[in-house]
Amino acid sequence: MKQSLPNLAVLGATGVVGREILKILEENKVEYNSIKFLASSRSAGSKIDFKGKSYTVVEAKPEEFDGVNICLASAGGETSKHFAPISAEKGCVFIDNSSAFRMDENVPLVIAGVNDEDLKTHKGIISNPNCSTSQLMLPLKALNDKYKIKRLIVSTYQAVSGAGLKAINELTDNIKTNLVGMPYEPKAFKYEIAFNVIPQIDVFCENGYTKEEMKVTNETRKILHLGQDVKISCSAVRVPVYIGHSEAVSVEFVEKVDAKEARELLKNTWGIEVRDDISTYTYPTPKDAAGKNPVYVGRIRNSIAFDSGLDFFCVADNLRIGAALNTVRLAQKVIEMGLY
Amino acid sequence: MKQSLPNLAVLGATGVVGREILKILEENKVEYNSIKFLASSRSAGSKIDFKGKSYTVVEAKPEEFDGVNICLASAGGETSKHFAPISAEKGCVFIDNSSAFRMDENVPLVIAGVNDEDLKTHKGIISNPNCSTSQLMLPLKALNDKYKIKRLIVSTYQAVSGAGLKAINELTDNIKTNLVGMPYEPKAFKYEIAFNVIPQIDVFCENGYTKEEMKVTNETRKILHLGQDVKISCSAVRVPVYIGHSEAVSVEFVEKVDAKEARELLKNTWGIEVRDDISTYTYPTPKDAAGKNPVYVGRIRNSIAFDSGLDFFCVADNLRIGAALNTVRLAQKVIEMGLY
Repeated sequence: MKQSLPNLAVLGATGVVGREILKILEENKVEYNSIKFLASSRSAGSKIDFKGKSYTVVEAKPEEFDGVNICLASAGGETSKHFAPISAEKGCVFIDNSSAFRMDENVPLVIAGVNDEDLKTHKGIISNPNCSTSQLMLPLKALNDKYKIKRLIVSTYQAVSGAGLKAINELTDNIKTNLVGMPYEPKAFKYEIAFNVIPQIDVFCENGYTKEEMKVTNETRKILHLGQDVKISCSAVRVPVYIGHSEAVSVEFVEKVDAKEARELLKNTWGIEVRDDISTYTYPTPKDAAGKNPVYVGRIRNSIAFDSGLDFFCVADNLRIGAALNTVRLAQKVIEMGLY
Repeated sequence: MKQSLPNLAVLGATGVVGREILKILEENKVEYNSIKFLASSRSAGSKIDFKGKSYTVVEAKPEEFDGVNICLASAGGETSKHFAPISAEKGCVFIDNSSAFRMDENVPLVIAGVNDEDLKTHKGIISNPNCSTSQLMLPLKALNDKYKIKRLIVSTYQAVSGAGLKAINELTDNIKTNLVGMPYEPKAFKYEIAFNVIPQIDVFCENGYTKEEMKVTNETRKILHLGQDVKISCSAVRVPVYIGHSEAVSVEFVEKVDAKEARELLKNTWGIEVRDDISTYTYPTPKDAAGKNPVYVGRIRNSIAFDSGLDFFCVADNLRIGAALNTVRLAQKVIEMGLY
């Protein structure tokens, strides 16, 4: 176990998730020796205020990883593919938000508090799961440990912030244009997102599912160490919400489940906040979850579609638990476990 | 079979669905002898332009049903409970949009083109299914006839127009208020609907499902004549869309299904328009479905959650197929089949 505090780098510091990483680093007690902010040449030179100091964003180049112990990366798949191996070779642990290495069997895919042990197998790269998978892992881990998941069917209601700054601005522009009765030509999306829902996120795979949908299937299996006998499908849909992904979840279990017992179990699970009281119309919504850290679970009920199953509604800030928060938590785990 | 053309009444003519009924009656070739427009005392006296003539809305009273053959009713459950038996006693066929009689075993629950034969059992009242059920019936009927449904899991993305004029105006007000950075106190909904989704539609039942969700279970079973062995569950969610309900549907079948074959089957089913070509990003969205009559189906794929199953995305104008259009179609069927 190394005793010295780590030198940190944040790659993609000026993007939507990068900014959120900075916010969370400011809130959290991550102790470090030094920190630097890397981005593409386009953003290099811009200023970042962090913990009361002003930093200049530096262009990401191989030599910038020299002496860095942990890199929190959120700069897209191509950038990660380029820099992760360079970073690893220089002894820096690259915590990656992109999908580039998630299904690589040599790269652990980890949600803090769910499968931390997998971090020990890292060879310089650690992957952060996709947002739509991430928020499901805390509740599903607790439920799987007790009831053993047999089948999982997820329908998502995903916020535009998952598609970046352009998409956030497009929602506003599209809404404003529609409100004055004008048509709008979408750019960030294939269809208008204002007052609409779009049943496609990411590109299509050969089996007719989108990559986003297959991420839920494949990443869930990898993180929870589920076998191929566990069946998982997803329908991923974009909705006109700025921040906060919601998911309607149906799970079938091997063991007999009871909603009341499951609710108590989830109430006692770290990282989850149960908001579930139908007598007071208490359930989570994305607007309430935005800017917050917990995974919110509500509408927990015994499934009437499965002999032993649950239906529930799961909401979280997609930029936090689905991206930046887990990245920071993974960095903390790497530091605590002395894995750098 | 009666030869004379019927005398029609539209009850609740000034509401969201009532207005849509008038639009569809103007578009369609429903032949009638006379037509009158009934509403509550509050709306009585207001004027309605219909097929180039001006009509005065009359207060709904028992005597107004004298001599009327068919009443197209969309005036809420309490009004229907009051007037439907009066209407039936006077020999008028009451086609009801409310939920008041849907599960009454003496009242047929019918989607035109799906279970028209059930109309023959009517005793003066015919029920129109709930919007979230309605749009599923055409595709599910075709699929059930061929592959036999075993299990059905539905997640809805429901437009605010399903909650009436107040809800439509609230979405606009809430959005405008948010755009200038102000908070908004919701009235029509329990939570803000702008840039949010709300996982509750209608009140809660004892089993933790909402009434809206149980309507999908119970009405689907009644319309398709499915046994209790067929398992059906639903998660009903309100989204900030004006018109057009969307549904992510997962179905398990008894017989072996194939997505390509199912797509052809649905293409050849009356009332359905298949929009499903992933190579051109072709799939339905509610904004495209608004104001149109077909049930749109896309994203048809072999389920990876069931050994024999399909996932698909189903979109329709909730005010049309989900309410007014089916009401008018049922009136047409009653006329054609001489059931008045």
